[in-house]
Amino acid sequence: MSLRPTVDFLLYQWLDAEKLQARERFADHSRETFDAVLDTSERIAREKYAPFNRVVDTEEPRTETEPDGTLRVVLPQATYEARRAYAESGLLSAAQDYDIGGMQLPYTVEAAANSFFAAASISIGSNLLTSGNANLLMVHGTDLQKQVFALNEFNGRWSGTMCLSEPQAGSSLSDVATRAVPDGEGFESDPLGPRYRLKGNKMWISSGDHELTENIVHLVLAKIPGPDGKLVPGTKGISLFIVPKKLVDTNGQLTGVRNDVALAGLNHKLGWRGTTNTLLNFGEGKYPVDGQAGAVGYLVGQPGKGLHCMFHMMNEARIGIGMAATMLGLAGYYASLDYAKNRPQGRPVQGPKDGAAAVVKDAAQPQVRIVEHADVKRMLLAQKSYGEGALALNLFCARLVDEQHTGDAAAADEARLLLEVLTPIAKSWPSEWCLEANSLAIQIHGGYGYTRDFPVEQYWRDNRLNMIHEGTHGIQAMDLLGRKVLMEGGRGLQLLAGRINATIERAIQVPALAAHANALGKALQDVGAATKAAWATGQPADALANAVPYMQAFGHTVLAWVWLDVALATLAADAALAQPASVGRMGAMRFFFHYELPKIGAWLQVVSTRDATCASFPEEAF
Amino acid sequence: MSLRPTVDFLLYQWLDAEKLQARERFADHSRETFDAVLDTSERIAREKYAPFNRVVDTEEPRTETEPDGTLRVVLPQATYEARRAYAESGLLSAAQDYDIGGMQLPYTVEAAANSFFAAASISIGSNLLTSGNANLLMVHGTDLQKQVFALNEFNGRWSGTMCLSEPQAGSSLSDVATRAVPDGEGFESDPLGPRYRLKGNKMWISSGDHELTENIVHLVLAKIPGPDGKLVPGTKGISLFIVPKKLVDTNGQLTGVRNDVALAGLNHKLGWRGTTNTLLNFGEGKYPVDGQAGAVGYLVGQPGKGLHCMFHMMNEARIGIGMAATMLGLAGYYASLDYAKNRPQGRPVQGPKDGAAAVVKDAAQPQVRIVEHADVKRMLLAQKSYGEGALALNLFCARLVDEQHTGDAAAADEARLLLEVLTPIAKSWPSEWCLEANSLAIQIHGGYGYTRDFPVEQYWRDNRLNMIHEGTHGIQAMDLLGRKVLMEGGRGLQLLAGRINATIERAIQVPALAAHANALGKALQDVGAATKAAWATGQPADALANAVPYMQAFGHTVLAWVWLDVALATLAADAALAQPASVGRMGAMRFFFHYELPKIGAWLQVVSTRDATCASFPEEAF
Repeated sequence: MSLRPTVDFLLYQWLDAEKLQARERFADHSRETFDAVLDTSERIAREKYAPFNRVVDTEEPRTETEPDGTLRVVLPQATYEARRAYAESGLLSAAQDYDIGGMQLPYTVEAAANSFFAAASISIGSNLLTSGNANLLMVHGTDLQKQVFALNEFNGRWSGTMCLSEPQAGSSLSDVATRAVPDGEGFESDPLGPRYRLKGNKMWISSGDHELTENIVHLVLAKIPGPDGKLVPGTKGISLFIVPKKLVDTNGQLTGVRNDVALAGLNHKLGWRGTTNTLLNFGEGKYPVDGQAGAVGYLVGQPGKGLHCMFHMMNEARIGIGMAATMLGLAGYYASLDYAKNRPQGRPVQGPKDGAAAVVKDAAQPQVRIVEHADVKRMLLAQKSYGEGALALNLFCARLVDEQHTGDAAAADEARLLLEVLTPIAKSWPSEWCLEANSLAIQIHGGYGYTRDFPVEQYWRDNRLNMIHEGTHGIQAMDLLGRKVLMEGGRGLQLLAGRINATIERAIQVPALAAHANALGKALQDVGAATKAAWATGQPADALANAVPYMQAFGHTVLAWVWLDVALATLAADAALAQPASVGRMGAMRFFFHYELPKIGAWLQVVSTRDATCASFPEEAF
Repeated sequence: MSLRPTVDFLLYQWLDAEKLQARERFADHSRETFDAVLDTSERIAREKYAPFNRVVDTEEPRTETEPDGTLRVVLPQATYEARRAYAESGLLSAAQDYDIGGMQLPYTVEAAANSFFAAASISIGSNLLTSGNANLLMVHGTDLQKQVFALNEFNGRWSGTMCLSEPQAGSSLSDVATRAVPDGEGFESDPLGPRYRLKGNKMWISSGDHELTENIVHLVLAKIPGPDGKLVPGTKGISLFIVPKKLVDTNGQLTGVRNDVALAGLNHKLGWRGTTNTLLNFGEGKYPVDGQAGAVGYLVGQPGKGLHCMFHMMNEARIGIGMAATMLGLAGYYASLDYAKNRPQGRPVQGPKDGAAAVVKDAAQPQVRIVEHADVKRMLLAQKSYGEGALALNLFCARLVDEQHTGDAAAADEARLLLEVLTPIAKSWPSEWCLEANSLAIQIHGGYGYTRDFPVEQYWRDNRLNMIHEGTHGIQAMDLLGRKVLMEGGRGLQLLAGRINATIERAIQVPALAAHANALGKALQDVGAATKAAWATGQPADALANAVPYMQAFGHTVLAWVWLDVALATLAADAALAQPASVGRMGAMRFFFHYELPKIGAWLQVVSTRDATCASFPEEAF
């Protein structure tokens, strides 16, 4: 089974993506146009990404020093070609309006299209950041900022970054120390936006420097000092700035002046090596502008609202990470399935014979392919249930994004709130379980999987990043239990429970699903009770001490729901299970209910009892 | 907390290692002599191993081609120096008799001493293979084989390998295809042992070629063809041979003739890169001996008994792997603890205030060190409970080895059988959970943990091997459920249950432990019931389909027992918990009972129901 049929099933049979045509924005679209986008993506991914996934790992980004002391990033040729093919495909602006050259493609289909690139080589492209950057400007930028910066990102001329973290401020953005001061008199009247000079260091900036594009548009979080010269503590003081690597005029032409943004170094990572990851120094005076140190930046939106602007894009960015983790998980699944079907090793167990205690095998028989061993099947089925389940969840969330943007007011609001609750799961769950899937893919390969002659060890290394970036696992868990399940009086959680119960009510009518429906109902009750118990004292320190186990249980419950709903769609499309793919989906669903869902008991126990073993553990006792 | 105090506590307070003095073999020993060995090991590990752990990863083994076409393995200088220091310390023969230059050190203390090297750099040394090789010869070799080969391994002149796997025969040793034929007339009268010529390819051979030592003693599994020229199917046809890289005389001097063993290539691994891993071609004619292709090998023991000889050493080899995994887990724990104590990031959660739903933090306060966050404590405590628990289990198993070798007949027999049952756990449990510990160590480091500037990503990569080599996870699980719990009428399982119940009976008297004692009692019952249920049909295919979940549950139960027993020793030594280390051990024990032991329910459920979701899943449905 390859990726495309699974994507097609989820899009058309499960999510009914064709119905989006009924929306005015998507009226010109049809399954044919969607398929054409998927075909193109699949082809470019196959030709320009997949063959070079190991190359970008081996030839990781390095720097050369130019005669003038500038550090230049060296990337493999394949990265240039992949980037060019992607930009030329129009996918960067696929979701945008026709009048700026977009295709008005639903986000659901865009996300599905991007899945092929992620599966082929997660680290070659960092196109999601460019899209996210430009999307943010389309919402919060001025008309000229959109025209000059966003459009030149969508058309592929320039690329974009998100500069949030600093060496001392990773998870804790309130500690951002980059300063932005007005750039002289008349700073407010620059047509590109109020002009500031920025000084500070930004860490972990993906695609922060390279020569893949003519220019790089940095979106930078920084603080404007108060009249006393001090920075406002906390996130409220954070503003957002456009800081181009090279200065441009109002027509989007390079002025020939380099901005004061200097590459300080590259991070040498465990994986995801195709994407340059940088430490950038803003305004250190390496490239003074008008004789002055300080990177020129243009304010986006209101001062002090920088994080608000940034978080506007956060849901989609987090779904993007969830999708990245998912596709790595599925890539490992396909690789290990292929290996298991072709590797002969061992024989079926027999006996014990004649009362002998030992299990015997008949060594005179030829070896069987390892896909015939139950334990290998178990490892394949686990990968399938993690990967396809995660893909379903992420496409469901993408569908909610479309609902939020094009549904009627009530539906849009409901989608917004469901997204708030589901996004931490869409990001964290694949990060954790598709990493486990990659470990199982290695295990199926045996010693060969531990070598660089097979792709699975790279998937595992690449995937390890996803629990860290765009908000760590711990941050997602605090967001879920500390904010999302509480917000708007708990209405998000109620909405989700309503959706889950609707699936349960349908499934309980179906003999093959009734037991699973009951198990899911019980799990939902348990999660609800644990949520209440966690907050019973009203003390965040009590509730959040076990936020991660809570998120793990919440995530497994959500995935069980997704699988049960996918099973309903499977039976609706193929009640007789005549297709092997249908049998496969039902098996993966059963696996999830038998092997995975029962795990929530152990996680919820510590949540329900507000277990303080960890929180109260004294530092000196470690 | 560093490693040494934990080792000391487990050796002296928990395992009462000093009592071994009462055995005649160890009569000259005392805590002073044990401590001296540990001191020396700690010092060499600190000076010669730890500083070079990253070097041997970055400068992984490579080959250069000599003018005569020979491939030469190039290793960093540090590897030579580490090897020399280790050999000079006398540790290679520490457990051997005085009369051959050994120290008659208990295996328990030897294992503890080796833990320091494993923590400092698991991949620099492969001394365990040399010891294992020589130990095997001491049991199964002739006097001259011991004299010539084993003794020159113990004294550090030569090193040893174990050549089991072949490209087509990894987990399935019955498919070994290397052939050994008598080396002409009079082959039986060679003083070094019946002389054969071997032809075949051996894969995954650790330290299979290098110039660290004057010679390399390969122990090779091969089959002697029957009169019809055919190999006997299965493991019964396997014999064991000494195949030196360079031929030697009966005085152990090199004859100047190279044996027909050729390095065919190096495996390029995900981790554990300090150890050369090779594909060796035996007898391909690259180095003909007496004008003839075929590697000269000397039979060890009886023909057809090769695997029997090899398995004699398997328990200790598997404990060695468990210890390797354990020490990588603890190395990551110490690194992430150090990081967490020094990295400021974020603030404690407060609120919700005034009925507001959101959790708030006071950004005007300075950041706290991340060791103060409950979720970071959770990740540290998990690592501590996995790593220290695994260390306790492995030292307990090492203590059983001493009992087996020096106890009275009844005690030795009991130790032997307990080892049979516990070895799959001692190998598999740390491989799985100390790998998870390493992942948590990365997580605590955030983005920094994903870079090669910190050691934790390497620990994680190195540790991934341990679920694969010396019998995969799946093989260990089949061994446990398919053989070990059944053997001798289930007496091994009964013996283990007896030990566990003895701990429960003591713990149930202690208020702080009574609830845990009950939980362990319940877990033991559940494992027992699941064992019966798994075999209820008598069909291995039914029982073994879920052998891995069974092993996971079995392992967690064993570890809970180990922790409860360690807690009893902790209270016995420090009833008032006056020492932070005592508080730490009690906390880690509670963590294991609260957060880990409850996981067994989900694993045992599929075992008890003989769940066939995986076994019956049709191949075409993947």
